Amino acid sequence: MTMKISARNQLRGKVEDIVLGVVTAKVAVRVGENLIESVITRQSVEDLGIKVGDEVTAVIKSTEIMLMVD
Amino acid sequence: MTMKISARNQLRGKVEDIVLGVVTAKVAVRVGENLIESVITRQSVEDLGIKVGDEVTAVIKSTEIMLMVD
Amino acid sequence: MTMKISARNQLRGKVEDIVLGVVTAKVAVRVGENLIESVITRQSVEDLGIKVGDEVTAVIKSTEIMLMVD
Amino acid sequence: MTMKISARNQLRGKVEDIVLGVVTAKVAVRVGENLIESVITRQSVEDLGIKVGDEVTAVIKSTEIMLMVD
Amino acid sequence: MTMKISARNQLRGKVEDIVLGVVTAKVAVRVGENLIESVITRQSVEDLGIKVGDEVTAVIKSTEIMLMVD
Amino acid sequence: MTMKISARNQLRGKVEDIVLGVVTAKVAVRVGENLIESVITRQSVEDLGIKVGDEVTAVIKSTEIMLMVD
Repeated sequence: MTMKISARNQLRGKVEDIVLGVVTAKVAVRVGENLIESVITRQSVEDLGIKVGDEVTAVIKSTEIMLMVD
Repeated sequence: MTMKISARNQLRGKVEDIVLGVVTAKVAVRVGENLIESVITRQSVEDLGIKVGDEVTAVIKSTEIMLMVD
Repeated sequence: MTMKISARNQLRGKVEDIVLGVVTAKVAVRVGENLIESVITRQSVEDLGIKVGDEVTAVIKSTEIMLMVD
Repeated sequence: MTMKISARNQLRGKVEDIVLGVVTAKVAVRVGENLIESVITRQSVEDLGIKVGDEVTAVIKSTEIMLMVD
Repeated sequence: MTMKISARNQLRGKVEDIVLGVVTAKVAVRVGENLIESVITRQSVEDLGIKVGDEVTAVIKSTEIMLMVD
Repeated sequence: MTMKISARNQLRGKVEDIVLGVVTAKVAVRVGENLIESVITRQSVEDLGIKVGDEVTAVIKSTEIMLMVD
């Protein structure tokens, strides 16, 4: 099921790595051939119980995505 | 060549659709099995000459990526 | 039910006003004594079927919230 | 007095908790029945002298607010 | 006077151009030798009475600034 | 050379200070008479080899820039 949130980008993947800081945490998620890196609060990692190997969905608001051309 | 920008997420894809507004524009980019939607300025679409069918790279700062679990 | 998304701010409210642009839309949501304004894509408003009077939840990533003091 | 900044969301509240990291800090602010969490730089917490119990205003740009429906 | 907001980047400049859309507006601000472009709501431009030639301050949260190297 | 990225704000400057946290890092960049502060991942600072004294370009998406008036 895709969640009904206005953020139009929802990329399904698997957690490959987690680095915990004091306030923030970095979570690396494998999505197809890309490795997505997300920085969220450490508390969210703990509250959601995110662990290496878990299936998660990366969610990104469209206004946060830039485009680059060669 | 990957650009040397601090934004850690750079997803290569092909432009499938462009909607032009007055100030902003929405660009849909096929990245593997996902369709990424980006909202940038209409001026950027014109200055970069982005057209349907072009290869582009979606660039996302890590702090803009949330995670969702079932 | 609160959705299990890492974004730590989820404010329940009622839609009071919607302005549709070509690409984006502005949705005003009453949350307690505050009126929250959200700019999302017009397509999201249509896909989610958001109408005046609907109950919705405003979702905000912690890194997007600034603080101001007198 | 409301500050004359373009950010359309300004939520008045009281600081309930502060967690200091090396670079960032997490500040929890009670706004009505909601607890808002903000991640700003530790330096800003120190420069603004933010302490538990202080009245502050959470400021959020409209483009950073998503909507979720049941 | 510098406003006491946690956003650590406050760049003083002069408005050179305004483009009004339905929901959003683009405001170009001259800051030293750089031309800053801001996309805010059209309503904010109107409520703040921003006009070409006005002195304004561009405000940017640190987490929104990327770095690029050659 | 200006990179061909949709982000319309690219401010050239020199690195004056770097603070490394566990997950994030704060980099201060002198741009004309302004000191820009950027929070990026520590890993990006290391991967890009950013050091005090380096010339870098601060990149900011237009939708992330607010305006303030007196």
